[in-house]
Amino acid sequence: MVNRQFVLASRPVGMPKESDLRMVETPVPALREGEVLLRALYLSVDPYMRGRMNAAKSYAPSVEIGAVMVGGGVARIVESRNPDYEAGDVVNLQMGWQEYAVSNGEGLRKIDPHVAPVSTALGVLGMPGLTAYFGLLEVCGVNAGEAVVVSAAAGAVGSVVGQIAKIKGCRAIGIAGGPEKTRYVIDECGFNAALDYKSTNDYSAAIKELCPNGVDVYFDNVGGPITDAVLANLNVRARIAICGQISQANDMQPSTGPRMWRYILVARARVQGFLVFDYAGRYASALEQLAAWVRSGQIKYHEDIIEGFENMPRALIGLFQGENLGKRLVKV
Amino acid sequence: MVNRQFVLASRPVGMPKESDLRMVETPVPALREGEVLLRALYLSVDPYMRGRMNAAKSYAPSVEIGAVMVGGGVARIVESRNPDYEAGDVVNLQMGWQEYAVSNGEGLRKIDPHVAPVSTALGVLGMPGLTAYFGLLEVCGVNAGEAVVVSAAAGAVGSVVGQIAKIKGCRAIGIAGGPEKTRYVIDECGFNAALDYKSTNDYSAAIKELCPNGVDVYFDNVGGPITDAVLANLNVRARIAICGQISQANDMQPSTGPRMWRYILVARARVQGFLVFDYAGRYASALEQLAAWVRSGQIKYHEDIIEGFENMPRALIGLFQGENLGKRLVKV
Repeated sequence: MVNRQFVLASRPVGMPKESDLRMVETPVPALREGEVLLRALYLSVDPYMRGRMNAAKSYAPSVEIGAVMVGGGVARIVESRNPDYEAGDVVNLQMGWQEYAVSNGEGLRKIDPHVAPVSTALGVLGMPGLTAYFGLLEVCGVNAGEAVVVSAAAGAVGSVVGQIAKIKGCRAIGIAGGPEKTRYVIDECGFNAALDYKSTNDYSAAIKELCPNGVDVYFDNVGGPITDAVLANLNVRARIAICGQISQANDMQPSTGPRMWRYILVARARVQGFLVFDYAGRYASALEQLAAWVRSGQIKYHEDIIEGFENMPRALIGLFQGENLGKRLVKV
Repeated sequence: MVNRQFVLASRPVGMPKESDLRMVETPVPALREGEVLLRALYLSVDPYMRGRMNAAKSYAPSVEIGAVMVGGGVARIVESRNPDYEAGDVVNLQMGWQEYAVSNGEGLRKIDPHVAPVSTALGVLGMPGLTAYFGLLEVCGVNAGEAVVVSAAAGAVGSVVGQIAKIKGCRAIGIAGGPEKTRYVIDECGFNAALDYKSTNDYSAAIKELCPNGVDVYFDNVGGPITDAVLANLNVRARIAICGQISQANDMQPSTGPRMWRYILVARARVQGFLVFDYAGRYASALEQLAAWVRSGQIKYHEDIIEGFENMPRALIGLFQGENLGKRLVKV
């Protein structure tokens, strides 16, 4: 049986090109005792993957040239020699960019298909949802009535951040690119307001208009000039979670911008970088809460599904071009 | 009796000029029941004063044009119609830039001249010492063995930060301008190492050399390129207190620099702006601790005393030119 994989062909310079990833075919290995064979149903593309393609170690090691590209997936067990799993089970795992994977069971998380579509294990009921949950509730902390601003608000993480903020009685203000996205965060996700940064020149004035009493919490997925504009509107004791900096992801040189630390000082604000993995011990209870909110309709989600394993590179590149609405997945 | 005062004559554009402050003479008012008359012994000049000279409200209101410039002082009571005070008492208060002041007793803090010279109520046993104390121990939090970097290390706040870090078993690394200051922080204040930024081109490499295992805590008094360089060397879970941004104080336009938030994200660092006034309820016990450290010789301090009330403007301007070693005061 043949396994199709994408391996890292070359380290991207700036924006990744499709040719930075190369499809290879390898035989699916035979199972040993204790192992399971998995077939990918959905594979995830996420902004963090760009960092893994660089040579420099970030918070996680680089992918080596020639190695299978890393990433999460939802897969069905097609054969099991592990007593904890049987054929037909659906699991979430870090399986990399490939159609088949063999696992000894370590790091697998069983997905109950009755709770929600299994694809959500890569989105609202997976890493992005958990990132929103812990980033907003633990890193920032919110109080009812506060103004919560989130960038990349129509994305997999941002859309959940705003909805949790609403559940907690906050005002949710999203920043997103284009009218389709701003409509989505307001009409579908129930945000109070949204800023289309593509149709705005003066971001800071626009944020001031949407947050006339200032910004209490900022969940930052993008960095750059949008973040500068939010910092210029902070309230005293504002909290800022740095989750991602997608606007900088493909910079070949560190970009420059105005120095904003005086704003942090004057507001006595707190800025905290975080990774969802810091909360790994608490995933189970958070997923239970997120699932309850999804079932009750308090959290809506949108999946942006690309068909075909061969389209993985294009799907990833599109993230950096803002193509996706909600969680982008590849259906294998 | 004539009171000499400095009033704000004009809002500085960039670096303050002496002519931005104007000396005026006014009569000392007669005391009413409950009031005391104070004569300044020492007046403080501090970097924060630059912000008060601007029209824009920062964390505290601006000084109005024509109003007496704000600031702290140590003064002797020359006449009292308040039962809590008698002539001869020495107190610390916000008295502004003037030789005499009248007070109803509110906000006065009696100074015991037996503990330390009364001038220290404006330095190591006053606002700068308290800023160091709460900023390091409460805002950052330190553990023995950690690498603590402080900028403006030979200043009133920075020199105390490093010494408290040493008391707590940390490695203290100071950043200061010129060999006299780096010698001072190492030889007098007992820092482990110091970086003379005036004789270094590659700040980041220099910090890496002094902190080969990375920076755990950064107490920032300056901002700008020095801060950029520290951020490039953060350890995971580093803590950063933003106390001041003196390098930016006289900027007419916000200066620009490399975007450093990715470093905060990757290190999962925490950045917190703070004001010492947030800890006002705990000043007394902190001053007791600081006084004990001064008495035991664990904290050394240096006072940079300028003689003559008329020299207040020049004394303030010199702060922004890095003239001072330790706490700059004007002896009236």
